[in-house]
Amino acid sequence: MEFQNYLPIWDKLTPDQQARLREVVDFRKVPKGTFIHDSSADCLGLLLIRTGQLRTYILSEEGREITLERLFPYDVCLLSASCVMPDMQFNIMIEAEKDSEFWSIPACYFKNLMDESLAVSGFATGLMSGHFSQLMWLMEQIMWKSMDKRLAAFLLEESQLEDTTSLKLTHEKIAAHLGTAREVITRMLRYFQSEGMVKLSRGTIDLTDPIKLRKLAN
Amino acid sequence: MEFQNYLPIWDKLTPDQQARLREVVDFRKVPKGTFIHDSSADCLGLLLIRTGQLRTYILSEEGREITLERLFPYDVCLLSASCVMPDMQFNIMIEAEKDSEFWSIPACYFKNLMDESLAVSGFATGLMSGHFSQLMWLMEQIMWKSMDKRLAAFLLEESQLEDTTSLKLTHEKIAAHLGTAREVITRMLRYFQSEGMVKLSRGTIDLTDPIKLRKLAN
Repeated sequence: MEFQNYLPIWDKLTPDQQARLREVVDFRKVPKGTFIHDSSADCLGLLLIRTGQLRTYILSEEGREITLERLFPYDVCLLSASCVMPDMQFNIMIEAEKDSEFWSIPACYFKNLMDESLAVSGFATGLMSGHFSQLMWLMEQIMWKSMDKRLAAFLLEESQLEDTTSLKLTHEKIAAHLGTAREVITRMLRYFQSEGMVKLSRGTIDLTDPIKLRKLAN
Repeated sequence: MEFQNYLPIWDKLTPDQQARLREVVDFRKVPKGTFIHDSSADCLGLLLIRTGQLRTYILSEEGREITLERLFPYDVCLLSASCVMPDMQFNIMIEAEKDSEFWSIPACYFKNLMDESLAVSGFATGLMSGHFSQLMWLMEQIMWKSMDKRLAAFLLEESQLEDTTSLKLTHEKIAAHLGTAREVITRMLRYFQSEGMVKLSRGTIDLTDPIKLRKLAN
């Protein structure tokens, strides 16, 4: 089974645990835009990304979003199993940003594994501290980096992920990623345009001077 | 040894592990204001708070602060052992906000324990997800709660911790807690004063209408 290549601690499981895991693991293939997880409503379990790109984010009461992490092939996500982690209370959403394939290990089964295997428990601690580290990075960005730098960095990251300098992105969507209002993004993109860094047209943002954007981002 | 009452998993350790722990654990008594930990410079290990109050915070390059957590008696802090957690890179500071006593379990020894004991490993995962949850809460506050609500909540929390409605706090210090500039706090406190919620005098903030403050905070 191919999925074992995506679980770094596979070799540290007993044959029994491996056999059971093969039985319970779920494989899913979802088109871009699919809403995968809402931790207030369900508890998906551990996610192993095979292909595509997922996004974890939170939502305010007023419906504002901010992206927490992006998940790529070979990434493992524990936030989707937050129900089995002690002392965790918050609501994390996950959606597919591209056509994606992933496995999920049911939360209750993963919890059992954590309780019986040192390797799995250590793995979970590592995942959790990775998620913590990522959240810390994000908070530092929000606290101490001005929005223009964050927007420049976001456009460059998108350009790299999509392998194009011509981005199909609405201002709304960018605002949701960065946790701000659409108007803020529109105003800033217009400023970027006036500085020759981007060119705006209907539904598209062309990065016309990535070097200048990079300078701003750093 | 009294310290075992502060380590929730003490009973799950083997007699050997307990004996070794008794040898390596360090007890410290520090006066208010003591700078305890800078994770870029050292790695203190797991902290068990006996008395007093500690504060964990981060610092921007420009010297701005924001408080991450406050630690009270019976709290256990893993952030001071971040060097032994996989995938963690950031710099966390800890200082004593009151005269405090705490034990520390050296990071390398705690790492060994994590690697050999399921109970300790599970405990670490729980601590980590607790820290994550706290950071998540903080981020939601910063993103979605306006500064006036955060300031009102902070004043009420301080009042409760110090058991007084007459707070000895500089505007500078409040700003560092909330991750903003002193001027912002001064302006807002003056507004609170004009609304009759506080009374400002040299070095002191008197909470004159806690009920109104509570309403604002919620």
